[in-house]
Amino acid sequence: MLATIHGSGPHTRAALAEMTGLTKTTVSSLVADLLEAGVVTESGAVRGGERGRPGVAVSLSGHRVATLGLEVNIDYLAACVVDLSRTVRLRRTRQADNRNSDPVRILEELRDLAKEVTVAAEETGLRVIGAALAVPGTVEGGVLRSAPHLGWRDVRVADLVELPFAVDNEANLAALGELWFGSREPDFLYVSGEIGIGAGLVVGGTVFKGTFGLAGELGHVVVVPDGPTCRCGGRGCLEVYAGQDALLGELTSVAELVSRLESGDPRAVAACERAGHALGVALTSAVHLLDPGRIVLGGVYAPLFPWLNGPVSEGLGARLGQMRGTPPALVVSGIGADAAVLGAAGLIIQQLLAEPAQMLGL
Amino acid sequence: MLATIHGSGPHTRAALAEMTGLTKTTVSSLVADLLEAGVVTESGAVRGGERGRPGVAVSLSGHRVATLGLEVNIDYLAACVVDLSRTVRLRRTRQADNRNSDPVRILEELRDLAKEVTVAAEETGLRVIGAALAVPGTVEGGVLRSAPHLGWRDVRVADLVELPFAVDNEANLAALGELWFGSREPDFLYVSGEIGIGAGLVVGGTVFKGTFGLAGELGHVVVVPDGPTCRCGGRGCLEVYAGQDALLGELTSVAELVSRLESGDPRAVAACERAGHALGVALTSAVHLLDPGRIVLGGVYAPLFPWLNGPVSEGLGARLGQMRGTPPALVVSGIGADAAVLGAAGLIIQQLLAEPAQMLGL
Repeated sequence: MLATIHGSGPHTRAALAEMTGLTKTTVSSLVADLLEAGVVTESGAVRGGERGRPGVAVSLSGHRVATLGLEVNIDYLAACVVDLSRTVRLRRTRQADNRNSDPVRILEELRDLAKEVTVAAEETGLRVIGAALAVPGTVEGGVLRSAPHLGWRDVRVADLVELPFAVDNEANLAALGELWFGSREPDFLYVSGEIGIGAGLVVGGTVFKGTFGLAGELGHVVVVPDGPTCRCGGRGCLEVYAGQDALLGELTSVAELVSRLESGDPRAVAACERAGHALGVALTSAVHLLDPGRIVLGGVYAPLFPWLNGPVSEGLGARLGQMRGTPPALVVSGIGADAAVLGAAGLIIQQLLAEPAQMLGL
Repeated sequence: MLATIHGSGPHTRAALAEMTGLTKTTVSSLVADLLEAGVVTESGAVRGGERGRPGVAVSLSGHRVATLGLEVNIDYLAACVVDLSRTVRLRRTRQADNRNSDPVRILEELRDLAKEVTVAAEETGLRVIGAALAVPGTVEGGVLRSAPHLGWRDVRVADLVELPFAVDNEANLAALGELWFGSREPDFLYVSGEIGIGAGLVVGGTVFKGTFGLAGELGHVVVVPDGPTCRCGGRGCLEVYAGQDALLGELTSVAELVSRLESGDPRAVAACERAGHALGVALTSAVHLLDPGRIVLGGVYAPLFPWLNGPVSEGLGARLGQMRGTPPALVVSGIGADAAVLGAAGLIIQQLLAEPAQMLGL
């Protein structure tokens, strides 16, 4: 019933009974529980249908229940609190150098950040009902299996905060962020360009995760079989050519790269062309294997899109043309660096809509 | 209810009522319809549970209902009839050279073959309730969009026979064949080595098809970005290095290649090593993107497995090691060249189990 309110609401109780096939008594009892929990709210009178009397409509409430998104990335920690109307209520980022770091210390810092935003949210009358964490690596169960850039292996993260908790790869969660807070299209491959490169495939509004939850490791698709050694132990992976380090070279920030590109610096332009060429090759393989609806470039690729668009599109067009007519559209993400942490908060909203009784302890 | 009988039967009517939550009256009425249609049969008395009286068990019947699998491949046409106990009742293959052929003529030949096996099946008392066709190309709706090796484009195949009919890519159907008639493991990537190379990913017993049904085109994963031009218009695709034509060189059959390999012919061994190396690169990209449970080599790769296994496993181990601990197991398909045509027949059994009333016209 909550999914119906979310998907097509607001609705009257009578309309909800009709749409869900539940009795009016059951609907009234469920709505009472959800009102009590602060998940829904009653708004002005609407017509329930052609014949019905005007009734009070029930919609998701943005005022009382919220979820917490967390992210450990290679050069920052982030937290956000999002309410059920998908409004971002709080967002904090701490710059940090987490490469080859001590997981215990970093997770302690993240726990502090989580507490800080939770307390701040609660001061505004919100109740935080669950949290999810985005990590730059592969996740199985509640364990971060391997995050090569952090230098972490087999780190248990499931008991980070005293809330219902989930953890997933940052690219999967960034894809969910794009779905919930970005374009809201149901079919796309979200490409997360960071120090590492990941991808999250969304088909019909659902993130494809593979057999063990390890799908979408676009950064380690082979571009040149005998190319330079990658941090993963492989050779010639996409990350070697199009990861943030390869793009920046001796520069220290993406902002600096963008300013050089704007002034036409030939070395900066060449770095983008090289990265774009490699991305075109890896995305050709990804399109053949995953068959995405469109391709959304996010993370550091978002500010670099004007310079990447040409070489990537050209590569896709030349290689995919005969098999596909037109290749998938290549677009830029509108939510940039916040995608993963927003998606983490969105994951908990999704869980709430699917399992409200469990998530609210009803 | 039929899925329950298939999944864990035989069961008594009482047990079926308990397992499905349907009333005993409904179960009896459904079973009567299915008995009438020849889909299920009654076998000897079994105990319905600890307390119950012995009852008559209901199981799928292999005696009356069957499905038809069809395949157009580059060098043959095939048809098979499979009964509901998954026994192959008839199988016919016609060698042919379908490259750059006239779709009208080839489909006419296939229609004849379909009629021939349907009549033969009916003579043994079977009723063929539906057919599916495997094609070496991309399918959307009932249309074969593009089969580069056949030289076919936008060919409507949906009205091939006067039966409920489905059509899909041969790699997807071969994966279904492996699932239904091969190892029956629920998680794997089936690699179909033919003149073209395709792959079908099965996760939790379901074939992953992507957004438009075009996923799994492993043959066009890029192995060498500036390699030789491929028939698809791209460059350095896997097919250029590991397709049947590349493996055979000047030889005329896979049997001849195997006999040369057995006698240690260095050119044959080198061709297999080259193909195995390229497969290792493309499968590394595929594992990173698709995250399969295991990798099953089928089609012409099945008889060549003893020579491909080494170079492919070596490539996967060297490239995937650090990210995954151990790479997915590499195994050989037990059903060889028949996988796609068997999977086509299996698809219709799957549809029958999901929608019996519709498929049987009840």
